[in-house]
Amino acid sequence: MRTPEQYRAGLAKMRPNLYIGGEKVGRDDPRILPGINVMAVTFEIAQDEKWKGVATATSAYTGKEVNRWAHTPQHPYDLMQKQKMIRLGAQRVGGCIQRCMGHDAITALSISTKEIDDKYGTEYNKRFVDWLSWYQDNDLCAACAQTDMKGDRTKRPSEQVEPGQYVHVDEVTDEGIYVSGCKVCITMAAYADEILVLPTRAMLEGDADWAVAFAIPADDPGIKQVVRPVWLHERKEIESPFCQYGVSDSMIIFDRTFIPKERVFMCREWEFGRRMAMLFADSHRHSYCGCKPAVSDVILGATLLAAEANNIQKVSHVREKMSEYALGSELAFAAGVAAAMYGEKTASGTFFPNAIFANVGRRLMGENIYHEYNMLTEIAGGLAVTMPFEEDFMNPDTKPYMDKYIVRNPKLSSEESHRIWRFVENVSASAMTSWYQIAGVHGGGSPIMETIALNIDYDYNARRNVARYLAGIDKELDQSAELMRQPTFGCNLMQPEPFGDA
Amino acid sequence: MRTPEQYRAGLAKMRPNLYIGGEKVGRDDPRILPGINVMAVTFEIAQDEKWKGVATATSAYTGKEVNRWAHTPQHPYDLMQKQKMIRLGAQRVGGCIQRCMGHDAITALSISTKEIDDKYGTEYNKRFVDWLSWYQDNDLCAACAQTDMKGDRTKRPSEQVEPGQYVHVDEVTDEGIYVSGCKVCITMAAYADEILVLPTRAMLEGDADWAVAFAIPADDPGIKQVVRPVWLHERKEIESPFCQYGVSDSMIIFDRTFIPKERVFMCREWEFGRRMAMLFADSHRHSYCGCKPAVSDVILGATLLAAEANNIQKVSHVREKMSEYALGSELAFAAGVAAAMYGEKTASGTFFPNAIFANVGRRLMGENIYHEYNMLTEIAGGLAVTMPFEEDFMNPDTKPYMDKYIVRNPKLSSEESHRIWRFVENVSASAMTSWYQIAGVHGGGSPIMETIALNIDYDYNARRNVARYLAGIDKELDQSAELMRQPTFGCNLMQPEPFGDA
Amino acid sequence: MRTPEQYRAGLAKMRPNLYIGGEKVGRDDPRILPGINVMAVTFEIAQDEKWKGVATATSAYTGKEVNRWAHTPQHPYDLMQKQKMIRLGAQRVGGCIQRCMGHDAITALSISTKEIDDKYGTEYNKRFVDWLSWYQDNDLCAACAQTDMKGDRTKRPSEQVEPGQYVHVDEVTDEGIYVSGCKVCITMAAYADEILVLPTRAMLEGDADWAVAFAIPADDPGIKQVVRPVWLHERKEIESPFCQYGVSDSMIIFDRTFIPKERVFMCREWEFGRRMAMLFADSHRHSYCGCKPAVSDVILGATLLAAEANNIQKVSHVREKMSEYALGSELAFAAGVAAAMYGEKTASGTFFPNAIFANVGRRLMGENIYHEYNMLTEIAGGLAVTMPFEEDFMNPDTKPYMDKYIVRNPKLSSEESHRIWRFVENVSASAMTSWYQIAGVHGGGSPIMETIALNIDYDYNARRNVARYLAGIDKELDQSAELMRQPTFGCNLMQPEPFGDA
Amino acid sequence: MRTPEQYRAGLAKMRPNLYIGGEKVGRDDPRILPGINVMAVTFEIAQDEKWKGVATATSAYTGKEVNRWAHTPQHPYDLMQKQKMIRLGAQRVGGCIQRCMGHDAITALSISTKEIDDKYGTEYNKRFVDWLSWYQDNDLCAACAQTDMKGDRTKRPSEQVEPGQYVHVDEVTDEGIYVSGCKVCITMAAYADEILVLPTRAMLEGDADWAVAFAIPADDPGIKQVVRPVWLHERKEIESPFCQYGVSDSMIIFDRTFIPKERVFMCREWEFGRRMAMLFADSHRHSYCGCKPAVSDVILGATLLAAEANNIQKVSHVREKMSEYALGSELAFAAGVAAAMYGEKTASGTFFPNAIFANVGRRLMGENIYHEYNMLTEIAGGLAVTMPFEEDFMNPDTKPYMDKYIVRNPKLSSEESHRIWRFVENVSASAMTSWYQIAGVHGGGSPIMETIALNIDYDYNARRNVARYLAGIDKELDQSAELMRQPTFGCNLMQPEPFGDA
Repeated sequence: MRTPEQYRAGLAKMRPNLYIGGEKVGRDDPRILPGINVMAVTFEIAQDEKWKGVATATSAYTGKEVNRWAHTPQHPYDLMQKQKMIRLGAQRVGGCIQRCMGHDAITALSISTKEIDDKYGTEYNKRFVDWLSWYQDNDLCAACAQTDMKGDRTKRPSEQVEPGQYVHVDEVTDEGIYVSGCKVCITMAAYADEILVLPTRAMLEGDADWAVAFAIPADDPGIKQVVRPVWLHERKEIESPFCQYGVSDSMIIFDRTFIPKERVFMCREWEFGRRMAMLFADSHRHSYCGCKPAVSDVILGATLLAAEANNIQKVSHVREKMSEYALGSELAFAAGVAAAMYGEKTASGTFFPNAIFANVGRRLMGENIYHEYNMLTEIAGGLAVTMPFEEDFMNPDTKPYMDKYIVRNPKLSSEESHRIWRFVENVSASAMTSWYQIAGVHGGGSPIMETIALNIDYDYNARRNVARYLAGIDKELDQSAELMRQPTFGCNLMQPEPFGDA
Repeated sequence: MRTPEQYRAGLAKMRPNLYIGGEKVGRDDPRILPGINVMAVTFEIAQDEKWKGVATATSAYTGKEVNRWAHTPQHPYDLMQKQKMIRLGAQRVGGCIQRCMGHDAITALSISTKEIDDKYGTEYNKRFVDWLSWYQDNDLCAACAQTDMKGDRTKRPSEQVEPGQYVHVDEVTDEGIYVSGCKVCITMAAYADEILVLPTRAMLEGDADWAVAFAIPADDPGIKQVVRPVWLHERKEIESPFCQYGVSDSMIIFDRTFIPKERVFMCREWEFGRRMAMLFADSHRHSYCGCKPAVSDVILGATLLAAEANNIQKVSHVREKMSEYALGSELAFAAGVAAAMYGEKTASGTFFPNAIFANVGRRLMGENIYHEYNMLTEIAGGLAVTMPFEEDFMNPDTKPYMDKYIVRNPKLSSEESHRIWRFVENVSASAMTSWYQIAGVHGGGSPIMETIALNIDYDYNARRNVARYLAGIDKELDQSAELMRQPTFGCNLMQPEPFGDA
Repeated sequence: MRTPEQYRAGLAKMRPNLYIGGEKVGRDDPRILPGINVMAVTFEIAQDEKWKGVATATSAYTGKEVNRWAHTPQHPYDLMQKQKMIRLGAQRVGGCIQRCMGHDAITALSISTKEIDDKYGTEYNKRFVDWLSWYQDNDLCAACAQTDMKGDRTKRPSEQVEPGQYVHVDEVTDEGIYVSGCKVCITMAAYADEILVLPTRAMLEGDADWAVAFAIPADDPGIKQVVRPVWLHERKEIESPFCQYGVSDSMIIFDRTFIPKERVFMCREWEFGRRMAMLFADSHRHSYCGCKPAVSDVILGATLLAAEANNIQKVSHVREKMSEYALGSELAFAAGVAAAMYGEKTASGTFFPNAIFANVGRRLMGENIYHEYNMLTEIAGGLAVTMPFEEDFMNPDTKPYMDKYIVRNPKLSSEESHRIWRFVENVSASAMTSWYQIAGVHGGGSPIMETIALNIDYDYNARRNVARYLAGIDKELDQSAELMRQPTFGCNLMQPEPFGDA
Repeated sequence: MRTPEQYRAGLAKMRPNLYIGGEKVGRDDPRILPGINVMAVTFEIAQDEKWKGVATATSAYTGKEVNRWAHTPQHPYDLMQKQKMIRLGAQRVGGCIQRCMGHDAITALSISTKEIDDKYGTEYNKRFVDWLSWYQDNDLCAACAQTDMKGDRTKRPSEQVEPGQYVHVDEVTDEGIYVSGCKVCITMAAYADEILVLPTRAMLEGDADWAVAFAIPADDPGIKQVVRPVWLHERKEIESPFCQYGVSDSMIIFDRTFIPKERVFMCREWEFGRRMAMLFADSHRHSYCGCKPAVSDVILGATLLAAEANNIQKVSHVREKMSEYALGSELAFAAGVAAAMYGEKTASGTFFPNAIFANVGRRLMGENIYHEYNMLTEIAGGLAVTMPFEEDFMNPDTKPYMDKYIVRNPKLSSEESHRIWRFVENVSASAMTSWYQIAGVHGGGSPIMETIALNIDYDYNARRNVARYLAGIDKELDQSAELMRQPTFGCNLMQPEPFGDA
């Protein structure tokens, strides 16, 4: 597995195809460095012996030890470890760890390529496994380009005025395919090695050209990445880890871009559009059951420090709010655990989380995110947006006053107090705040998408039957479908054996 | 294991110590029959071969097959099966299955008697195991009398003007103890075989007399049960299962009541007051992760039928509300699963659910219950409280109009429509509605109790540390405490073996 | 104006056309007495010199002093006094004062008959004024029968399988009209003198027969009222005002019922269906801005007593909840005041409240009602559904214990404590509770109806224009439409003159 | 009254005492220009004949026409016009109009100086009226410096380790007083003419030195303003009004600063500390009933444009959310109207809004603000934080793609689409967003402060009495206190006279 340094060295060799603020730039542009720093943490953790088995796994294809981010889960424990790895990394960088998108795309492709092959006799799975083995061996990281520009939301891909509103196949040749269109909101693509392109929605037959999936090097000259980076103000004197991390999203433009056929994983099998889209989405929602609790942990941490700085940490309404963070985080985390326990082994061998539990976990967090910032603000007060700039704490004319008055709780030093409020500012009133608020609602599918998923998947009929029985309309009640449902793994839930060394 | 008929026959032999509406009555009083009908269902399910392993278990003490309600859980799977058993039974009776209180008291006593003995060399655990073996062999059912009358909430037990506001020891003799005081809100005690008495709160040394636990036959002449039964209006023509079920709560009065020493499980070990109270409470909160989803299933079922009767089941805001029931139910259920997975094996051998997950699951449901009724009402409209009585559907003067106008959705017959609205009335506007609303908030501990429990147990310091690291106050971050936490059972989460036949 | 006794005497003379529980009964049926007691309070208050000008007004048609319930508002102050009268009466009876329906129907008819006449040269307004003068002179009370049975909600009146799902004209003769169909959820019709029938929705041309409005004596033999009464358990010893009040709703069946033409106020003018329906609805929503705060006052009062009985009235979370009642009540009351100030003088002379403010006030309360009960329950605890019956406080075997243990706060006597908990039971866990919950959502139009009304009436375009200006799309911003809007009355908002004797 | 140009010219003459980012700067620093632009709008509107009587008023002291911002309200209509003026200005600048702080401080001082004089025979009111007449004649604008740094929240001013945590009197001489300490979060002080300093809380006798109020020129060399400005990214090509506006907050440091006695309005009259603090706070909360609806109007406007750009403006859940903005805005606005109607004439002649209504209005908006941003985000999607920078829309390499793909709704041009999304970015994901979120919670007092105010002022006892009567504990119910309450102005609410020319 690569070290952070090796990852950074790899970036240095990439061909420039990024555009930021009107310029064409390389991977050494300082505006994307904060995102690169996040990615580096994922490599660093995997080097740490302590996190072996959490941040690493045994490849289902090569049998080698690989970075868990490049691993296809094989059993409930893999999913439970994935949740932990994500929470671990996300706590460390103060938010989105960014590498789960690639993981979830790999999961989706491992399953769907097998299912397409089983139906059509195609060879997508073999291609994908070859690609994945290479990807695992080289410990690469991938973005997942799923979200299309979408155009008019009331129209299907093939009905758009501008066909490129969804990425699609222009032409198929013996060597590969040509694709055009625009993907948007593609996090970390600017500093990924690879980009996995997947469809974003269900398709009808007329949309066949839009049913396409493939892998492409992130620095392929055939694409343009127009990048929107987000970063925090640099600190002059009181540096902090939180300030070093950031994120970038790319708008990725394909314009008759060539994809060699060994990298094509779906081409016009429109019936699998929804399946592939949902496999990514539901795997990603399960990932959110690990990452959103970490985002809450960070906001809760900021809340605790702000309360301490105001010396109100024992006030009743403050304590009540503290418990609300715990409520949200642990319900979402529990949803991830239940999704693992009630997941299913697919034909490909990949173990997939239960969609109902993954969706309720993600939806809860998506509904809560603004409320969590609201609570932080209620407890912190107005300083986050009114505190003078760091330089005013350094100017000799103002420094003595700043140092004196910033201390509210006399148990804290000036520097500690200043650090706390600067951190609260970073968390609740910075460019990253807006990114986390909006990504918190929409990343992995907004609450409305989980509502739709629940309305499709949830067994409402079972509840209707309960009511019909109790009302005396039906004479019998069959409860077995749901209540006989068993985890598919682990009779040894009953035997106390040590975990982790099977 | 007993049949429902054997359970009913047992009640017939009990000594009368119930008071209802100013009368002293026996277990044949029709006002408690609806509660007895609920209890009978728990015996019936255990007879059903289909639910073997769900409704039954292998006793940890006798090795015999016993009713799961009388079983002390031994591993995560036991806790997961308990959740299912509760949801199964609760769907069947349309709400509270009532027998979990005894189960949770047994769990608490199995653990705490062992821990007291380990500290003090007492013999409570032996006494308890003897009692439990007899209880299992005879397939009895027990109420748990935990909630005291409590008096002035701002004062401790020993500070109350009236000492009986909490049940306490009056005198200790060689043969046993004498106790006095009043327990309140004790569900199903009127038709239980046994009553397990536990303390309801933490104690200080001065409260030692109030630290007492024991078992007593429910029909002991030394106690008075003043019973508040709840039942639904009987139907004249269109009977339904839901109408046959109900509940009773007892105020139980002890007045120098004698308890023989072999039935005494704690006596003045005040340091264990909080532990025993919390063991019951947290086990019970885990039970709620099975039962509250079933209560939601019933309200959702009523909502689905009402929507159908109004022919609005496809309307957007109706579908949005449907998904909210799913969100709440499955998050709470997931919390129960996670509590099982991250539970712990206690010194007694009993496996105990993780308190954080059990508390967040229970709290969510306690906060949601009124909202769920609100959604049902929004969708059903006003008929639940304005529909004429059943007799007006039978009176020839009005029947033709009733039959004609009750049909809103022409796909439903008059009788189906009438049954649906009568059921909606029963669910949302009956004496049972009030009971479910109030028990939904307070049963098993109200949201404020779970808030308190979270504020004590949750690792806020871990979040504070994350923030201190990210803010640059601390140089290192140790994340291992929580993120290295492992389920204590089941490496075979990684091996696909069939469940249930270990 | 009539005394309560005169009102009761009038009921005694009415022809029996009520059906309750399978029987045909007269106005002396004890099950409707609790509702009659409410109505009597409205007569009693009008006799009280202290409430002159609040409970009484000067008729716009006859110039005589009349009961305000029978008055058509003429200016903002009339609307403000109406709010007070409603809150006054509703506090007195512990909830719905019931007589506002007639008031709001009169308001709607006074306006719409004039508007129809202005368009078509009909003489509805003259008929209505004649009827109203008689009604005011005799101080009668009227129910408003607006809500139809409605049948399939996705279909218009004329599309229903059963045409009587909405009341409609069967035949028009020189003497009058014949009508058929079914109105439902008609509060207080069982003990009203008159019933005013109005359409419940907008109509298209094909629905012309369903566009009909008229007055009919409540005891007309041509109709059947199938009555669903709601009442509280009678007290044996500790009587209370709250227990004496209740409510009834009628399903009113018309079957070729004859209405003489002088009582017909609309007949087939379908274009006015929506207008008349909304005039009633919006006037009624304004009335809710007076009554719902009173309902909150009662629930808050019960909460305060429960907190006192538990001796937790100073606890932080209790005080926070107290303020939530104040927040809801006073926002809704304020909405009523603003609706008065920004109301409009119609062609008929009747002054009509601003629809936006009336709708937001009503919607808020409709969204809050279950939450308010939830807060009461949180603070009161479980006693409301588990406290033994009153007779057990009288039975010598149990009385001493009951009297002793019911006292939690030693500053309260046994009787006071018992009265408080019995009242909390009545408020939060009785048949009236369900009625208030469901009426709280749906009475006067459910939140979804106010949402629809807002979406039609609110000036979204003004906000869109603000955004287009700020975004630089439009160069100019015209803000005058809304911000130049003036109250139509009262330059003397600037002059300190005494109120009430203009 | 001054023109915007005159206001700007005045700033140019001010002495530099601002510190920003480590530098000492003048009023020409570009970082405070966006705030100056806001202030200029308040002068511009007052010049507009159309808004005469809204933006202007007749001085109660000089009888001259003055800018309404400098006017002390005399009657309900003044308060209603103030609400409109604020909503008008706030819509125009897309948010906080900033000048209300000075207005509310003037209101508070006009009343409290009179009350102190009435009690102690001091001459504060005369001094204040002199100052105000000069202020009105010169059409100046003032900041209000109320919020102190506060230090340890659990301690009173005199108990702080550092006495300057609250501004206080160091010394009193015949010529005036010397004051020290630090005020924080003082909006618009950087470009105000004057600063009015008021106490922020109740005082006890030991806090007498902290009970001090006075006026000071904003550019007084005796103070240092350490300024935190907030501004939006400048646009290169597609300029917009919204981008030109911003805000600044000052930390104002007093260090033995001299205040001449004719500018001192309170000095050590500690009993009036709470009164003066609440007069400002409640007047300011009434102002929020005008401004927060405008903030909602802007967010709603952005929501409407985003929905249009996504072509989802007719989707059910979008329309439901739209109505939620209307609900919040109009309830808060209504609270302001009711506060005006039920306000009171104080001894000073100034008319003061009703505190209950002002508090419920402000609290509602403070609780809603994050939720409003949440709704905008739900409807807008992720583009606000992922859209490439404006320069990428200008770079020829990327422009054609940007122009093509930014158009989702084909009815909109590229430029319109781009403007809409850029505006949505400015509103929901900019530095101003954080400022509005946090100011939305805390400006004018956070929800917790209104909760406290309600708990002190609301007549809970009246509700307790209602409950005691209904429960049968008290035999009588006196409802007159609240329900006999009358507006103190305007019998002509009953007479249709034209507004505004009394």
